[in-house]
Amino acid sequence: MATKKNKAAKKSVSKKKVSVRQSKVSNPEREQIEIAYIGGGSRGWARMLYRDLALCPTIEGRIRLYDIDHAAAKRNVKLAAEVFDHPDAVTRFSVSAMSDPVKALDGADFVIMSIEPGPIELFANDLDVPLRHGILQTVGDTTGPGGISRALRAIPVYLDYARLIMEHAPDAWVINYTNPMTLCTAALYEGFPDIKAIGCCHEVFGTQAMLARLVAKVYGLKEPPPRDEIRVNVSGVNHFTFAAGAYWRGVDLLDLLAKEIETDPDMFADQTEHALEQKRNEKWFSSKGLVARDFMRNFDALGAAGDRHLVEFVPWYLADESTLHRWGVIATPSSYRLKRARQRDESARRSSKQARAQGQREPLKGSGEEGTRIIQALLGQKPLLTNLNLPNTGQIADLPTGHIVETNALIEENRITPMIAGELQPSLQSHIRRVVENQKLLLDAAINADMDQVFEAVLSDPLVRISTDRALDMFMELMETNSPILKAYQEQVGWTGGH
Amino acid sequence: MATKKNKAAKKSVSKKKVSVRQSKVSNPEREQIEIAYIGGGSRGWARMLYRDLALCPTIEGRIRLYDIDHAAAKRNVKLAAEVFDHPDAVTRFSVSAMSDPVKALDGADFVIMSIEPGPIELFANDLDVPLRHGILQTVGDTTGPGGISRALRAIPVYLDYARLIMEHAPDAWVINYTNPMTLCTAALYEGFPDIKAIGCCHEVFGTQAMLARLVAKVYGLKEPPPRDEIRVNVSGVNHFTFAAGAYWRGVDLLDLLAKEIETDPDMFADQTEHALEQKRNEKWFSSKGLVARDFMRNFDALGAAGDRHLVEFVPWYLADESTLHRWGVIATPSSYRLKRARQRDESARRSSKQARAQGQREPLKGSGEEGTRIIQALLGQKPLLTNLNLPNTGQIADLPTGHIVETNALIEENRITPMIAGELQPSLQSHIRRVVENQKLLLDAAINADMDQVFEAVLSDPLVRISTDRALDMFMELMETNSPILKAYQEQVGWTGGH
Amino acid sequence: MATKKNKAAKKSVSKKKVSVRQSKVSNPEREQIEIAYIGGGSRGWARMLYRDLALCPTIEGRIRLYDIDHAAAKRNVKLAAEVFDHPDAVTRFSVSAMSDPVKALDGADFVIMSIEPGPIELFANDLDVPLRHGILQTVGDTTGPGGISRALRAIPVYLDYARLIMEHAPDAWVINYTNPMTLCTAALYEGFPDIKAIGCCHEVFGTQAMLARLVAKVYGLKEPPPRDEIRVNVSGVNHFTFAAGAYWRGVDLLDLLAKEIETDPDMFADQTEHALEQKRNEKWFSSKGLVARDFMRNFDALGAAGDRHLVEFVPWYLADESTLHRWGVIATPSSYRLKRARQRDESARRSSKQARAQGQREPLKGSGEEGTRIIQALLGQKPLLTNLNLPNTGQIADLPTGHIVETNALIEENRITPMIAGELQPSLQSHIRRVVENQKLLLDAAINADMDQVFEAVLSDPLVRISTDRALDMFMELMETNSPILKAYQEQVGWTGGH
Amino acid sequence: MATKKNKAAKKSVSKKKVSVRQSKVSNPEREQIEIAYIGGGSRGWARMLYRDLALCPTIEGRIRLYDIDHAAAKRNVKLAAEVFDHPDAVTRFSVSAMSDPVKALDGADFVIMSIEPGPIELFANDLDVPLRHGILQTVGDTTGPGGISRALRAIPVYLDYARLIMEHAPDAWVINYTNPMTLCTAALYEGFPDIKAIGCCHEVFGTQAMLARLVAKVYGLKEPPPRDEIRVNVSGVNHFTFAAGAYWRGVDLLDLLAKEIETDPDMFADQTEHALEQKRNEKWFSSKGLVARDFMRNFDALGAAGDRHLVEFVPWYLADESTLHRWGVIATPSSYRLKRARQRDESARRSSKQARAQGQREPLKGSGEEGTRIIQALLGQKPLLTNLNLPNTGQIADLPTGHIVETNALIEENRITPMIAGELQPSLQSHIRRVVENQKLLLDAAINADMDQVFEAVLSDPLVRISTDRALDMFMELMETNSPILKAYQEQVGWTGGH
Repeated sequence: MATKKNKAAKKSVSKKKVSVRQSKVSNPEREQIEIAYIGGGSRGWARMLYRDLALCPTIEGRIRLYDIDHAAAKRNVKLAAEVFDHPDAVTRFSVSAMSDPVKALDGADFVIMSIEPGPIELFANDLDVPLRHGILQTVGDTTGPGGISRALRAIPVYLDYARLIMEHAPDAWVINYTNPMTLCTAALYEGFPDIKAIGCCHEVFGTQAMLARLVAKVYGLKEPPPRDEIRVNVSGVNHFTFAAGAYWRGVDLLDLLAKEIETDPDMFADQTEHALEQKRNEKWFSSKGLVARDFMRNFDALGAAGDRHLVEFVPWYLADESTLHRWGVIATPSSYRLKRARQRDESARRSSKQARAQGQREPLKGSGEEGTRIIQALLGQKPLLTNLNLPNTGQIADLPTGHIVETNALIEENRITPMIAGELQPSLQSHIRRVVENQKLLLDAAINADMDQVFEAVLSDPLVRISTDRALDMFMELMETNSPILKAYQEQVGWTGGH
Repeated sequence: MATKKNKAAKKSVSKKKVSVRQSKVSNPEREQIEIAYIGGGSRGWARMLYRDLALCPTIEGRIRLYDIDHAAAKRNVKLAAEVFDHPDAVTRFSVSAMSDPVKALDGADFVIMSIEPGPIELFANDLDVPLRHGILQTVGDTTGPGGISRALRAIPVYLDYARLIMEHAPDAWVINYTNPMTLCTAALYEGFPDIKAIGCCHEVFGTQAMLARLVAKVYGLKEPPPRDEIRVNVSGVNHFTFAAGAYWRGVDLLDLLAKEIETDPDMFADQTEHALEQKRNEKWFSSKGLVARDFMRNFDALGAAGDRHLVEFVPWYLADESTLHRWGVIATPSSYRLKRARQRDESARRSSKQARAQGQREPLKGSGEEGTRIIQALLGQKPLLTNLNLPNTGQIADLPTGHIVETNALIEENRITPMIAGELQPSLQSHIRRVVENQKLLLDAAINADMDQVFEAVLSDPLVRISTDRALDMFMELMETNSPILKAYQEQVGWTGGH
Repeated sequence: MATKKNKAAKKSVSKKKVSVRQSKVSNPEREQIEIAYIGGGSRGWARMLYRDLALCPTIEGRIRLYDIDHAAAKRNVKLAAEVFDHPDAVTRFSVSAMSDPVKALDGADFVIMSIEPGPIELFANDLDVPLRHGILQTVGDTTGPGGISRALRAIPVYLDYARLIMEHAPDAWVINYTNPMTLCTAALYEGFPDIKAIGCCHEVFGTQAMLARLVAKVYGLKEPPPRDEIRVNVSGVNHFTFAAGAYWRGVDLLDLLAKEIETDPDMFADQTEHALEQKRNEKWFSSKGLVARDFMRNFDALGAAGDRHLVEFVPWYLADESTLHRWGVIATPSSYRLKRARQRDESARRSSKQARAQGQREPLKGSGEEGTRIIQALLGQKPLLTNLNLPNTGQIADLPTGHIVETNALIEENRITPMIAGELQPSLQSHIRRVVENQKLLLDAAINADMDQVFEAVLSDPLVRISTDRALDMFMELMETNSPILKAYQEQVGWTGGH
Repeated sequence: MATKKNKAAKKSVSKKKVSVRQSKVSNPEREQIEIAYIGGGSRGWARMLYRDLALCPTIEGRIRLYDIDHAAAKRNVKLAAEVFDHPDAVTRFSVSAMSDPVKALDGADFVIMSIEPGPIELFANDLDVPLRHGILQTVGDTTGPGGISRALRAIPVYLDYARLIMEHAPDAWVINYTNPMTLCTAALYEGFPDIKAIGCCHEVFGTQAMLARLVAKVYGLKEPPPRDEIRVNVSGVNHFTFAAGAYWRGVDLLDLLAKEIETDPDMFADQTEHALEQKRNEKWFSSKGLVARDFMRNFDALGAAGDRHLVEFVPWYLADESTLHRWGVIATPSSYRLKRARQRDESARRSSKQARAQGQREPLKGSGEEGTRIIQALLGQKPLLTNLNLPNTGQIADLPTGHIVETNALIEENRITPMIAGELQPSLQSHIRRVVENQKLLLDAAINADMDQVFEAVLSDPLVRISTDRALDMFMELMETNSPILKAYQEQVGWTGGH
């Protein structure tokens, strides 16, 4: 309740802001911004950001990349030139790679974060170790024993960045893309309570697309309406969110869907065949949305994330592979994670030439991500109503205040206002609360480096249905694989490795 | 938690809706609507509604007036013709007066409610009786012993209308203008929990205007920016609301105001002279906003209602007239209430001719009220973000769920989504909570006709600082004056008049 | 919040009470009481009650048995005579069997409830049907699909009794022994909110005995201290309760136990051998308390119920029989339930003679149950501090108010005051809250006969880790077996059997 | 949620405890204890403690006095010898005065705290300054502007002692007698969250005595039953507590009292005459309990503190002296406070001889305070159920967890278990919550030395009904008088004196 101190802080900040804004009243044509990109060596995300910025006529400025893999960041500097030189580009950003995160952050207006917490081999372990003890995971980057293991690696890193941002870019808006989304974003707020951070995830876009197709079918439209005409009232935590309501114009889409479910006898038919084919073709990320609709059938709210994520938060779909396949979902194997990482490294080395060649040939296309739209909205150029991960200040009344939840919010000039999410069934709310309470437990355990409490979180995870003694063995193995990367933090806070 | 039954109900409703919307997809030029107007004999409000509708090019249809004073409703039928015949009118509504509320409500798309709870003499008593026992009130229609007395008359009426709406217009949107706003709207939800009702009040408009003038002054603009460019993050209950934040573009207006307060030594100078002059000139509704700003000074949030209302919710400004005048506020006397009512009746008799005469002469002007804009937004014609009185579903996390609170909300086609209000200081929140708890107590007492509990609410009102025995005398007198009008309800629920 | 009406009711009741007490001030030697026994045909419980009463020198009076099996009740009338004729008996109760529950209840001071909800074949089904779908249950009378099925049969019966008690014995203290304890007791409060009901369970006695043995071992005592010297601060819901603290004199027994766990390497050794032997010997109810201690190890609070119950509330111990056996626990098979019921019927037919013969031979011994001690305490004869199932009014601050929880309470003359339970780890609290929320869901579903919502409760039960479609098959089978007994209630509230 | 760390701490502590208790199992005749007495120079309290201890046959040991007035502590050393030499004394304590609080605390089993926060002249100011600005206070040591001023002096002192106790007597039980009771005790828990502190107050004893007289009257007993036969279910915060229930044996005493109120027409007759007589006779502490009963009449719960305290928490009785007198209550003037302090100093100088002389003559009598009984109970000698001020862990479900509340609790060997208080009317609960929220605000403000926030607490106090500008003047004067004593703390935390 140290409100007065916050107020003091707020005031000094806002005095500065006022003067900035005063100049802004004169309303320049194209706004000049500084972006710091943490994890700026990442392949996919960097390219997408460049493309979206290059197509945005109302902003220009600088991007400063930082990555612990400095060579990767430098590769992305080259890549940038090619995108912004493309004939379709309507604006220009100068891009540089910093060897020190402070230099990237200092004075930034926006900070974009997208990192890989630890080497890819640890991601593989996060899948393999639990599997050896009888726990199957489809993704393993958000929840389950694998997600917990990943969170333990990511949280200390995010706490550190929170402090750097507090010192070097306290007024910047921070946009996080890293998983586990909820806990990374939460760690930012733990480290710097006044941070202006949001977590962004595209999973809901798929839900909107699915509903748009439903609209087209029911109303006999030639094309599905555009995604942003489909309003989904998102409620939950990232990757375990639900549509408490969904609308197209005045039409209640959940009612439409409920009718479909009632009348289509084949909707929930066994999808094992399909799953096996997808597996043969290594189409790891496809799904039919059957699990999302199974939630609708059982709990009156449509799952608003991909099935691959939804199944990891409840105990019903991952007992074994055949159960999973019945729902048309397949698990991404660790081997693919390793392979893709290696391919990327190779392709990165070749990318420069290719990209140039391609760049001239192919038109520049937007990525479908919303980061650039969000930046425009925060600059006051055009308000945006979308789903974001933010501290709960009442938007989901049933969940604890302060926890990072995913709901809609209205983004306007230098402010974001969450929207009331709408009520879910008590039974479904109870499943979400269970997940939230475990996230809080884990966050607290990670901050205090309390290994006993981490194990409590492992036991309480919905996927952990093995005997407690076996769960302990699994946990110790996971911690063993993580130990080198955790060592620095262990020493820092006196982590004992106990139990 | 009978969610399934609600769902069933919802479904049958929405099936109908879907078919309606299906036809709507064809998108007609001008939407056809049916409005029921309860209290349709009222002078001011009817005229304003006509004018706003007449100037709105996208809707047309019918208005059915109902008033217990049927003659007054019939007079307003005539008045309507004159407004819609005006050359400036761009659309047309046919208006009729019903002698039965059911006929007004049946099949309505919108229900507007604006009534006087009991004869004007009882309003006068609500001021005079407390005054005789040492309690000064500036308005007496919302809170204080007078507001409590008025609520006791209004709540049974509103419960009855809730049931009528449930039976005859369950899908209609209900817009309430009657005070006490919070309790009348709450009674609608008590009587029909699935009602789609909102309470509308223009007090915040004054706050926006004041802040617009501040912007003009600080930024040297020739004209204050238009009201709807000033965003006020409203938080509280009607007439006791606060700006948790206020913005113009990216500018934080509360910071601007805080600076003004710090640097302007005369801002809080004694306004007794001014008050006495206003009193001499019978300018009962004017105020300088000093009390609103005194809240800013003491509690870091600007009062977002007129000073005449704000002073009635706290114990500091109404000890006696001289204290009140020091803040530049004056109390509206009961004599004025009686006089104005009589004048209105006379003017009503003459209005027909005058209006016709005037109507030809003067251009048709909008009222400044938002009812028509809200109707357009609910029809999906243009979204509107404004402050509304609605059940709390998290928009003010500190207040109990379900209570009618005032915050911003986004109005879109057939749905309203509340916005998170933003946090107030704990001390101020505590004052609001005190008011809210007393409103809940009173609502419950009124519903159960529990006179002992009503008296508890009287004692707990912030204006009641007299000895408990004297308060009981005052209460018994107030109940005596109300007794004829309460009798029907007393018999209905077995009100004993106890204590 | 209809407090005033409650008060009115309370007053008229207590006026009567005052006059009763006035006579009581003269302090009679032996208090005269009337006991109604619902389920009075039950074998074991009736005999135990008789014995305990017969050994209690401070009360005497009448017992009126009611059972839907009137013959069984009549048999128990005969049995009574034999117990109270025993030379060791120090008091006398006259016992009669009523064919109408109203006659049993009318004017009773105490109501004892101990019934079997439905024929024993349905209990067998509650075990067999889930087992066929891959869900193993150890007891199946409290939670899990079996407990849910049983609750659906019991709740309507308990709602009916609540109304009968309200009409015929509103001042009586009601002592419930039937499982599912939490939901049966909750149904009493749903049906008659002012009921004075408690739920009694002896599971904690075993925990006290275990701790008493620990004390003896550590302090080298010849005999364990008596059970009532061991204070266990109970916290949870019946059969899923924990010792938030445990004391003997000033000694903290949880600390003692933690030390034992740390230093005894064999404490958690594999108990498969032992389990198989118990199974061979049909010792269904034995357990080593390993699971109770595993909670202590993992969550810092000792399980305060038998392992057979504890394992049914979490997903870790019941994956299959071999996992269960590893912890030294075995599952009671449905065949045993059927066999025991048949044996009892036979033995009942023979019991009369035997009992008489035995009665003369063997000394009369107390049952170890606390019912008679509780009655004495409520009569003001001697206060008792013990664990009871009661509506939560704050004793477990983390759980919802009103839910039936199990904690300690102080029983004095005509009043019971719950004691603060003490805090459990957040992780463990989360597991309990999950159970509580599901109980609330189920109770509400049962009251409204909402089959969809019952299925939500089935899915949300910790033991249900099978695919949702398979869970639905299981659920439909269970409902099919229950359908004859549910029919009456279905018709009463319009149960549709939907989904 | 750093539970694990607490657990670690707890464990090391309890290991020690176990060994202590082990020796204790041998059960010595008379327990040896060490008492530290902070404020050990105080006249009244020291003498009472000596007498109670001297009459207690089961304990003996040492008392170490500490007082900032070392001379006063030394005088009390002499006084002790006289009491323990008295022929009626059954045990013996050796008493010494320490010039360093650490020496008093080191290794203490019990710490008794009873201090005067600041010189008596400041107490006088706490009454006089508000009075000059129109605010009458009867006591001024708990709430109101005077109580707030006193709290600002006391809280820093108590924070300091909390830290000393943490370092030097972490296992000691701390018994606080200083006002403002709630905030002093709260400061102990703020400074040392694991402290075992309770606040003790005798106000409820008066309520019990009043009810005992009622029992005697109604049942025609010759003598009122002894106080400890009257059970009062206390609920509230110190000096603003209520009997949620009251019992004598099985009799509901609130029902009895309600009947008295209904039937005795003179019960609430004007007591101005009586008040004036008490004033003339300087009987400052007498009252007729009319206000306590007025709460019963209006809010269905008997006030459970003296009227002089109750009137300071609500706005109805202290408008002016004549209103106060009407209820038979008088305000203790500042002149009396000054006079008594001076008399005490003089009497102290003479006391030694007198006491000796008297000591031989008069029999040693118990004080009626419960401190010694509490010590016996904590030693496991005899459990005690009484009212205590303790952090809320659910005993009052409507108030925030952690706040210091007053309810009944059961005191046993080395542990205290709060009892559920029972529900008050929502209206009364609202008045209590208002007080609680202001106490929290003030505590937080004092800890952070936030003068703006202290002023918010002043404005929000129920006695402050003056204009906000006048309230600010009053506040600045009060702070001026306190400034010398606050200076040290100001410097320590950077108190700015702002506003």
